[in-house]
Parts: sequence; C-alpha cells; structure tokens
Amino acid sequence: MSIDSIYEPVQDGLELVERKLTGLALVNRPWVAKPLEYVLGGSGKRIRPALTLLAGRSYTYDLDKLVPMAAAIELFHNATLVHDDAVDKAMTRRGRTAVNRMWGEEIAVLLGDYLFSVAADLVCSIGSFRVMRMFAQTLTEISGGQLRETFNAYNWRRDRKSYFEQIYSKTASLFEAATGTGSILSGTPEDAIVALMNYGRDLGMAFQVIDDILDFSGDAGEMGKPVGGDLMQGTLTLPAIMYMEQNPKDRIIREIFEKHGDREKVDRVIKMVRDSMILDECYRIAADFCDKARRDLDVLPDAPPRQSLLDLAGYVIERRK
Amino acid sequence: MSIDSIYEPVQDGLELVERKLTGLALVNRPWVAKPLEYVLGGSGKRIRPALTLLAGRSYTYDLDKLVPMAAAIELFHNATLVHDDAVDKAMTRRGRTAVNRMWGEEIAVLLGDYLFSVAADLVCSIGSFRVMRMFAQTLTEISGGQLRETFNAYNWRRDRKSYFEQIYSKTASLFEAATGTGSILSGTPEDAIVALMNYGRDLGMAFQVIDDILDFSGDAGEMGKPVGGDLMQGTLTLPAIMYMEQNPKDRIIREIFEKHGDREKVDRVIKMVRDSMILDECYRIAADFCDKARRDLDVLPDAPPRQSLLDLAGYVIERRK
Repeated sequence: MSIDSIYEPVQDGLELVERKLTGLALVNRPWVAKPLEYVLGGSGKRIRPALTLLAGRSYTYDLDKLVPMAAAIELFHNATLVHDDAVDKAMTRRGRTAVNRMWGEEIAVLLGDYLFSVAADLVCSIGSFRVMRMFAQTLTEISGGQLRETFNAYNWRRDRKSYFEQIYSKTASLFEAATGTGSILSGTPEDAIVALMNYGRDLGMAFQVIDDILDFSGDAGEMGKPVGGDLMQGTLTLPAIMYMEQNPKDRIIREIFEKHGDREKVDRVIKMVRDSMILDECYRIAADFCDKARRDLDVLPDAPPRQSLLDLAGYVIERRK
Repeated sequence: MSIDSIYEPVQDGLELVERKLTGLALVNRPWVAKPLEYVLGGSGKRIRPALTLLAGRSYTYDLDKLVPMAAAIELFHNATLVHDDAVDKAMTRRGRTAVNRMWGEEIAVLLGDYLFSVAADLVCSIGSFRVMRMFAQTLTEISGGQLRETFNAYNWRRDRKSYFEQIYSKTASLFEAATGTGSILSGTPEDAIVALMNYGRDLGMAFQVIDDILDFSGDAGEMGKPVGGDLMQGTLTLPAIMYMEQNPKDRIIREIFEKHGDREKVDRVIKMVRDSMILDECYRIAADFCDKARRDLDVLPDAPPRQSLLDLAGYVIERRK
C-alpha cells in the first residue's frame, strides 16, 4: 500500500500544510530563509502532520485549526532532529548533509530554537489551551528523555523497561501529541480522543522499534545514514539489549561502550544479530504495538479516515527506510 | 541604591519565584535535577522576573499569575544563555564554569530545550493567549536575531542601525516581554501596557549598551568573563563601531575579524578605545535610553512600584558587572 493512497482522505490538508511550511521560509528574516527551506524541503514522509489531520478527519474536519497544528507538529519534529544532529555531530540526515555540517553547529542550535518558536506561535494562534499545554509538555517529555539518553550514553546496563520508556519519550510522545491535538481540535468525543492518543502512542512505539531494527538490518545507502550508528554513539536499543540477554557472558557490547565506539566490533555485533532470531523477535514486538494501535481504533466510525489509520499501522511495520 | 531596596515592593513575589525555580529541580526526572539546580542557582540579578512583578505591581497584583510568568521569563532567559554559551563554546558564565564545559555541549543544548519547554508549560498554565503569543514571538525574535548575529560573525561592515536592531532582538525584546506580560496579567489599562512595554524595551537597550561597554572597560575578575570577548568572537558592538567611524583608515578591527580573533590586536583596540572618548559617548547613549525609559513611566500612578522602575533605570546605567 503506498503512503499516498493512505494519506488520500487528508490530501487537501497535507497540501495546505506543505504550503504553510514553504511560506514560513519567506519571512522577513532573509538570513533564516535558506536553512529553513533546506530543513523543511527534505524528503520527510510527513507522517506526524498526516496523523494530526487523519485524527481530526472523522469528526469536525476544521482545516483552519488542523493545518497550523499539523504544520507546528512537523516544525517541532524538525526542530528536534536539527538539535539531535547537532548534539550527535551527525554527518547526514535523510540522505542529505545535516544542517550542522552545512552551516555549523551554532546555526543548527539556533535554527532549532527558531523552529520551536515558530511552531509554538502557530499553536498559540489556534487558540486552544488544551493543545497548547499538550504541545509544551511534549517538548518537556522529549527534551527530558534526550537528556536522560545523553547522560546514559555508553551505559550498557539498561533493560527493556528503560528502553521502552526511552522510545516513548523520544518518538511515541510526539505521535501521541499529533493524534491528540488533531482529535481535540475536531470536537472529537472524549473516549475517541483517548483512543486516538493511545493509537498514536502505540504506533510511535512500533515506529521507533522498526527504526532501531533498521539500524541493524538496513541498507546504509537506502536509509541515508550509516548502519550501527546507535551502538557507535552508545545508545542501547532493543536488538542490542536482546543480544545481551541471550549472551550474558559475551562482553562485546560492554567493550564497544568502554571504548566509546569500535567500528570493527560494532560490525561483528551487527552480523551476529542478523544471523540470530533477534530481529524477528523485534519485529514481533513492533507488530504487537501495531496490533494494539489498530485495536485502539475500535471506537472510531468505520470510514475512510479510520481505514487510513489502520493501513498506516501496516505501512509502519513494513517500512524499510 | 541597592538592588534589594529597588525590588522591595515585589520582594514577596520574588521569593515565590525563587521557590518555584528551586521546586522545578525536584522533578520526577532525577537526571535533570543537577544541571537544572546548577543553572538556576547562579548569581543572576533576577532583573527580568523583577520587571514582570514590578510591571504588575501598580494594578491587580495577582501573584497566582505573576509568579509563574516571572519564573517562566527567568527560565527562558537561562535557556537562551545556556544555548548561547554552547554555541560560543564559552568557558564561564557569571564567574562559574559554563554548563557546556561542566557537562558537555550535548547536555547544554538539550537542557536549554528542556528549560524552554518548562517555561512554555508554565506560561500555558496561566491561561492567557495574549501573553502566550507574546512569549512565543519573543523566542522567535531572539533566536532569529541570534541566527543573524551568527551568520554575521566576523563581518566588520556593520553600522549603528544594525547594532540597535541586534540588541533589540538579543536583549530588549525579552525586557519588553517581561514588562508586557506582567502588565497584561494585572488588568493594566491599555495605554499603561504600551508604556510599560516601551519602558522594558528602552531599559533593555540601555542594559545591553552597558554590557557592551563593560566588555571594553570591565574588570575580568569582577565580571566573571574575559574582556574583549565580543571582538574575539566577531561581534561588532557599539564601541567598536564608533572606533571605526572615528578612524575610517584604521584596519585593525578588519584584521582581527579576518583572522577570526587576534588577542594581541584586540587588547590594542581595547586600550585605544579606553584612551578615547568613545566609552563616554556610549554611556551617553545608554543614559539617553534610560531617560526615555523613565519618561515612558509618566502615565503610571505615582507609587512605590513606579519609583522602583525609575530607580532600576538608574541602577542599570551604574552597574559595573
């Protein structure tokens, strides 16, 4: 199933979001235009703004509110990416040179702040306290989680529980906010708001587990970033945690972390994980999150937007980059 | 006049702000506590939260709204400092090791984001769209301005007009937001809101001019940072612009910028500026801003809060660190 056909019920809204994002680069601050255009012109799948629109599609589909909200969610997401890349000194993002390499870390930090502020202003313009607080609290969740991850870098003593907490903060919280804000702004009944937020969270968990699988199984060229990056940077993800669970006497990951990254050993771990059943088990866990996400939608009316959300869960589990 | 006696009419509010800031470190994210405590425990003068409280003091002095607002303004200010120091790779801040040196740049970037988000959440909790938008737009102004400054680093072709625009973005916009939000939240009549925002802006302009003077005239030990830092980092401030105006054939600043900083030449420029009348002229410009700030207050009732704002203008012009 193609992503375009999944997005079909909100295609009109997504086009307006795109126009809104493009318009932001034409601000009265010419020096911001170029990096802004560069960041927002990337080949992102726009999954988060699509979630906002799809969550609102089943009820009062008010594009005057949903378009700025969806644009703000996408800006916010890009702000966190730009800061993450600056922090990680990343070389590439989505197959292109990362902002921090293109214009330097200073610009990356300040551009991220700028994106946050423009996103916040868009959210303010909508006029709902509830979505505004949700938005602010999501930034607290994400930045608080990234702080923990950074303090925990190269710590090999982490278990699945801490991993799931981490990916909630990092990814699922924003998916949850995307469906949460979209549904709130569309006069959705309270039980359906809860359901859509649960869906967003579960889908986000699946999305991140797949992301972490791809860092072991993926094709570097296709993904636009090198494989094994998480281990190199001292981030313990599900496949690595499972490897340690299944090989309690093997100290290789510990050794990688003690050396703050060791390319040769990372490649060995990747090969061992690929040769084991670990990635299949990880896929099963991601599929469980997607199944749960689908079940979350039981309360929604049986209509095209619901079908798109169901299909999106299938898309997330099948993605290869 | 001591700062404590100036703050006297809002001493109760400032204590609550302090308690609020301390309380933030006791969050359910233990890993955030230490850097948060460190940042918020510095020896800042709390001039911005005092402005918020003093601006509200003449009308309905509602501490339930003003305390979170003033705390948010201080958090916001600290967020920008932490990011600026990360970007500038600063060694010290207020005489102490900068966060980026203490915990690394990664933590500094993420901690800044965290501070922004907590500030935004506090502002949301107050429940005024007008202050919320003002808050978001101030972040856009500041980060947009810092982006321009970074793109303009080591550009010696800058005039006074661009300098004044720059210090508005960098400093005066937050002073303006401090008095603006404080007055809005206190049921202040519209003409007095405008007056207090003008006061905040003019005071902020004076504050930054003095800051830029101190980078030439100050005592490194007293200020907690080295003198001449602006020239070393490629920032052209008022004294340097005046030096170039008065010595159009002297290429020393151009040479410093072409070499991206040259300690020996910077020290020579500092000496030449100190030996000239430039700093006196800069003081006169700062004093003009302060006089304007004082006149902005004509519409306010003649009561202790107004007197404190008048005295604060005197304090700003006299500060030596």
